[in-house]
Amino acid sequence: MRAAIVASGSELVRGDRHDRNGPYLAADLLRRGVEPARITVVGDDPAELEAAFRAGLEEDLLVVSGGLGPTHDDRTVELLARAAGVGLRVDPELEAGVEELSRRVAARLNRPYADFAEGVRKQATLPVGAEWVGLVGTAPAVVLALGERVAVALPGPPRELQELWPRVCETEPLRRLLARGGVPRRRVLRLFGVSESAVAQALAAVGGDGHGVDVTICARDFEIHIDLFVQPGADARADEIERGFEAAAGQYVFSRDERTTAELVLELLRERGLTLGTAESCTGGLVAARLTDVPGASDVFHGSVVAYANDVKRDRLGVPEQVLSEHGAVSGEAAAAMARGARDSLGVDVAVAVTGIAGPSGGSAEKPVGLVYLHAAGPDGELARRLDFPGDRETIRLRATVAALHLVRRLVTKS
Amino acid sequence: MRAAIVASGSELVRGDRHDRNGPYLAADLLRRGVEPARITVVGDDPAELEAAFRAGLEEDLLVVSGGLGPTHDDRTVELLARAAGVGLRVDPELEAGVEELSRRVAARLNRPYADFAEGVRKQATLPVGAEWVGLVGTAPAVVLALGERVAVALPGPPRELQELWPRVCETEPLRRLLARGGVPRRRVLRLFGVSESAVAQALAAVGGDGHGVDVTICARDFEIHIDLFVQPGADARADEIERGFEAAAGQYVFSRDERTTAELVLELLRERGLTLGTAESCTGGLVAARLTDVPGASDVFHGSVVAYANDVKRDRLGVPEQVLSEHGAVSGEAAAAMARGARDSLGVDVAVAVTGIAGPSGGSAEKPVGLVYLHAAGPDGELARRLDFPGDRETIRLRATVAALHLVRRLVTKS
Repeated sequence: MRAAIVASGSELVRGDRHDRNGPYLAADLLRRGVEPARITVVGDDPAELEAAFRAGLEEDLLVVSGGLGPTHDDRTVELLARAAGVGLRVDPELEAGVEELSRRVAARLNRPYADFAEGVRKQATLPVGAEWVGLVGTAPAVVLALGERVAVALPGPPRELQELWPRVCETEPLRRLLARGGVPRRRVLRLFGVSESAVAQALAAVGGDGHGVDVTICARDFEIHIDLFVQPGADARADEIERGFEAAAGQYVFSRDERTTAELVLELLRERGLTLGTAESCTGGLVAARLTDVPGASDVFHGSVVAYANDVKRDRLGVPEQVLSEHGAVSGEAAAAMARGARDSLGVDVAVAVTGIAGPSGGSAEKPVGLVYLHAAGPDGELARRLDFPGDRETIRLRATVAALHLVRRLVTKS
Repeated sequence: MRAAIVASGSELVRGDRHDRNGPYLAADLLRRGVEPARITVVGDDPAELEAAFRAGLEEDLLVVSGGLGPTHDDRTVELLARAAGVGLRVDPELEAGVEELSRRVAARLNRPYADFAEGVRKQATLPVGAEWVGLVGTAPAVVLALGERVAVALPGPPRELQELWPRVCETEPLRRLLARGGVPRRRVLRLFGVSESAVAQALAAVGGDGHGVDVTICARDFEIHIDLFVQPGADARADEIERGFEAAAGQYVFSRDERTTAELVLELLRERGLTLGTAESCTGGLVAARLTDVPGASDVFHGSVVAYANDVKRDRLGVPEQVLSEHGAVSGEAAAAMARGARDSLGVDVAVAVTGIAGPSGGSAEKPVGLVYLHAAGPDGELARRLDFPGDRETIRLRATVAALHLVRRLVTKS
């Protein structure tokens, strides 16, 4: 079972915006047992769109995002119908639905509905034989069954697409199609502190993937994410492969599910009844931002002092002037004082501090760009790390952020 | 002049990682006067790769990223040669270069070089007639001239690709190709506080684009980004279109260059000799992280108090207990007290505060999810805003972050 994904949008093909829909759909299709063959990003050029649709219709499933809007350069329905060799029709029920929404938009923008009428008719036009699902915005999802194959068109805004796609999967044509494929189970291993090549070697040592087990090894967010896609009946082989990873790098495994590291850290602290704060210099709030990205973080995470300037380190975190003058703001001593100061200042049980040189300037021979000190302090002890990260400013800041979260994890699990 | 981009990698086509190379190359090609026709993301399936290469070779330029590594599933060179109808050869100079690098890697990993030898020979294999540029990692960039057309293969890691691509553009085949196209000039307008449809209408009112001026209107990061790509000789038409935008939405234009809003805000404060801090609740450090993303931010940005818990708002920002109990932590009064408290606490001239309900839970009838209060306080006055953002947690946090930066901009420019 194979699918082609077409993401349309001139801002996407011009690199003004990254396509989020293709990766979302690909990952979800894989979970549903459909292999994504390709993701094609095209603009609004009709010839490009039609060629991509024709190629996509040769797969079991074609999923298109974007091009369902009211303006002349939204051509997905027209060109999909042409590529599939079917005509067009206006769906009266859909037209009524889009009209109702558009009348509300017109009222809010204080514009006459007449400005919208042509666009409404356009958005209510479907390929003959297609059904629709919606509406989240003013565009519906369109499902067109073509014998054994199915073509789907979804609105481009990621929020609308992600709300409509699971509903599309419940339609009869998709249910029939998905029932034909076997759904592989996914096993997950997350590692930190080990190289991608060591993990790849461990896989090679147990004979590689295949025989019903597809393995992806991916360095992501400076962690190593291993996914095993296990076909029905291949569990014994998957166990063997997992044991190979365990033998080679078991001590680096920190998770066996898809939670983010921030979720995991918050959960570990929650279980132990501990609160958390951060003291950040070079990461400038990124550790706090990661933690507060998690809904419901507030029972564990209380706050942060972003101490970019030395006087903030001194006055708000109580870093002694002597530490700053003798060891510098980027030092293990400063990191330790920041972490202890954050515990006091924020009134939290555990605090992690980050100070370093993110570059591009500010480095020296003994303190080069990429040098980062981390310090975690809690009720039962402390942990310190000195790291030398390669890469640019963004990379160094992100690596330091991830490493800070892992240092908290290690402190509270004593691992 | 048109280009096809092929990004290869099974982690990309499976949605495990977002492709960064396609958008980078597309945006850069556009600046060099080449229109990106499509970006195709494919895995390591040979048939998919070859089909994408064949389609790409029909354009003036094909640029491929990835698949140049030493392992069996790296097939770009072999399949590119097949699609172009040329043979393969080992380049001795390239082989010596890759060998030298690989010997160093082997020594570092404490593995015998023999493990690497086969991969080295593979990475030194090129299509007949191709030249190479490199090495940044162990893979070179490959440039293959095919009559008037050119095919380029670049290593997949974004850092290597972005270092090699400008050098590839200096090779003879690319210079010849780029010289054939006219390079459009780019004009930029950035707006905040106006809807995409109002801007689209302004464009329609002046007769739309075309006649040598290509206009993209893109809602990005909750701002409206307008780009005019102006062909040589079309400046008068571009002026007309710009005047149309000015007439319809001139008061919302905040920038005419490609600097980020964080850069712009820091520059405005720097010119005025002012320092900046933030006090953040629902954004949890995101405003500080945006500001410190800019190299050299430290002369302006001094720090932040991320006050997620009420006691941090009270103890670290001096928000009166009475404000919290009478108006709540999400209120205009709390935002004002946070901003004033941050000025004192961080010792900065200007502070911006954010407090709101990012959801998904925590909303109520009078304070729904998406309600955000902003307050900016400086030496010459204050500005407050109450906003109701639609969307999910991530969207609300990002919108609040962008709006906070713009509030600082408005405060210091008194606009």
